[in-house]
Amino acid sequence: MEANRVYNFNPGPSMLPLEVLKEAQAEFLNFDNSGMSILEISHRAKQYDEVHNQAKADIKELMGLGDDYEVLFIQGGASMQFDMIPMNFATPEKRGNYILSGSFASKAYKEAEILGRGYVAASSKDVNFKHVPTQDEIKLSDDAAYLHVCYNNTIFGTEYHYIPETGDVPLIADMSSDILSRPLDFSKFSFIYAGVQKNLGPAGVVLVVAKKSMLEKSPEGLPTMLRYDTFYSKNSLYNTPPAFCIYMVGKTAKWIKSQGGLEVMAERNKKKAALVYGAIDNSNGFYTGHADKDSRSFMNVTFRLPTEELEKKFAAEALENGLAGTKGHRSVGGMRTSIYNAMPYEGCEKLADFMEKFRKANA
Amino acid sequence: MEANRVYNFNPGPSMLPLEVLKEAQAEFLNFDNSGMSILEISHRAKQYDEVHNQAKADIKELMGLGDDYEVLFIQGGASMQFDMIPMNFATPEKRGNYILSGSFASKAYKEAEILGRGYVAASSKDVNFKHVPTQDEIKLSDDAAYLHVCYNNTIFGTEYHYIPETGDVPLIADMSSDILSRPLDFSKFSFIYAGVQKNLGPAGVVLVVAKKSMLEKSPEGLPTMLRYDTFYSKNSLYNTPPAFCIYMVGKTAKWIKSQGGLEVMAERNKKKAALVYGAIDNSNGFYTGHADKDSRSFMNVTFRLPTEELEKKFAAEALENGLAGTKGHRSVGGMRTSIYNAMPYEGCEKLADFMEKFRKANA
Repeated sequence: MEANRVYNFNPGPSMLPLEVLKEAQAEFLNFDNSGMSILEISHRAKQYDEVHNQAKADIKELMGLGDDYEVLFIQGGASMQFDMIPMNFATPEKRGNYILSGSFASKAYKEAEILGRGYVAASSKDVNFKHVPTQDEIKLSDDAAYLHVCYNNTIFGTEYHYIPETGDVPLIADMSSDILSRPLDFSKFSFIYAGVQKNLGPAGVVLVVAKKSMLEKSPEGLPTMLRYDTFYSKNSLYNTPPAFCIYMVGKTAKWIKSQGGLEVMAERNKKKAALVYGAIDNSNGFYTGHADKDSRSFMNVTFRLPTEELEKKFAAEALENGLAGTKGHRSVGGMRTSIYNAMPYEGCEKLADFMEKFRKANA
Repeated sequence: MEANRVYNFNPGPSMLPLEVLKEAQAEFLNFDNSGMSILEISHRAKQYDEVHNQAKADIKELMGLGDDYEVLFIQGGASMQFDMIPMNFATPEKRGNYILSGSFASKAYKEAEILGRGYVAASSKDVNFKHVPTQDEIKLSDDAAYLHVCYNNTIFGTEYHYIPETGDVPLIADMSSDILSRPLDFSKFSFIYAGVQKNLGPAGVVLVVAKKSMLEKSPEGLPTMLRYDTFYSKNSLYNTPPAFCIYMVGKTAKWIKSQGGLEVMAERNKKKAALVYGAIDNSNGFYTGHADKDSRSFMNVTFRLPTEELEKKFAAEALENGLAGTKGHRSVGGMRTSIYNAMPYEGCEKLADFMEKFRKANA
């Protein structure tokens, strides 16, 4: 770690690869010899076009997806997708099916409900979302327009370790907090989206990777900016895109490629998670994990300490040790340490060491 | 001008103050001693809160607005506002009134029409938008929910030089291309919005400055992310905001303050525009301005040359001389030189000199 930088365990916005930040900093006043900052360059310029299309191509390559998939960049956060998805794909007669596996999964369902187009296909709310529902628990409605899942639940620290089988019903996944963190058979998903501010870039753009057949035609009467066909037909350039965010996403995708792709990310993330979960499991009950072991997230590790006082102390002392953002979400309490792609192994090592020392001093 | 930098006359994204870019570059890896980049910092962190709220306060101060106005930050570009405005403020029985003064003004109207909530109160389409409609030409419908104007028309190079009188009907203005470029009695507007990528920052956020009474309650049944009351009640932090863009807007607002505020901006912009319009008016007809003189924009100067061939040559030779982005929009043809707040006087001087030399060589 560079002097003055901390290990940032915040759930998002969160750490970006230092190499990526340094590259952006170095060319901040003069992008690609244009004499302009990337912030100042026209979105109709050839140089921006290359950034935009290369980012798309690299993402599809990393995901192993072919010509039947398209990449879109949309503003408004995943929350805007909670609205656009039922507006584009559901009707009161053909309802969006939702699995409630956490806070954002439930918010997505709520938005479909505002439109009278939602149906709960499974839920783990009764156990405070400490695991994701199993395949057996999923009951689709007869009129299912799609099944929506939140693939990694940031707040509760759970993640799917299987891909739900839905037959002919399109599978839609919010992957905001685990996008490009591990290889999956992405072709089983019809529509994937992710607010990029956790694993891929700065807040301000949502990545959509979807089957072209889902994007070609939106319902009549829908306003222009809420239609996927607007973004699809104009290569996400109907209006000025959030160019800087897309540029950073492109740089991060290139960085993932340079590191060896999703297999390497997954291997690293597994090792990193093992360090932190190890510190929990070997604490003689001083630390208790929130998530059931078979639903544990590789991205967000949530745990409690014996008292809230100790939890506060933990967060404060961690920060003094250069480990920032360990405080958990109020709905779970305790600690949440987010260890996305850009968190170095050394950061998790330092965290696990700190956990061990803190336990010994306070148990 | 620094070595390697050009004068960028693009219509947006466009030039930002070099001081602002340098400041952002210097603290890019470690914002405010947080050990994190501004790209990585949590939007719930105290340090981000200060950025967010200071930007709001500085903008209101620059506009001379009081406690009855609120500042929001929303994603999706001005185009998303074209949708949200009629969704929040109009109904089929109480229609949004629109003045068609150019391309974006017409797009805003079209979105209201998709919802069956639009009415044309005035138009200068029949003269290819070479001036903005006068007060006398504005005929509000009896059921007017608001009057929407596009205060500066980027593509056609026209700008309002009066504030439309609307009586009790709220006045809504798209100021994307002239926001904070001159002092106005902003209290005559009920709702002002601007995509920031022309005069205030990088693409990726829309600034809304509106009467609180407009924002307090949105219609029932509207999805969360399309409701102004969501943004209002949560200080634009319902979900993760485009933090970097807001940070840059804040820095630019602070820069405007440090330069002396809107009076100083207006004085500079007037002098800059006079240089370029002077080069047109003193060209013996070699250059012909698109806009009528009484509607001329201080921000976007549009003009034609005798032939399209010469126009191409002009753009190419201008670029060789460090003057980028002078090509006009296809709907007007010719040249468009955008001279927003961040364009230095020297840039306009250089442009006027170039225009004179080019004329002499090619007349």
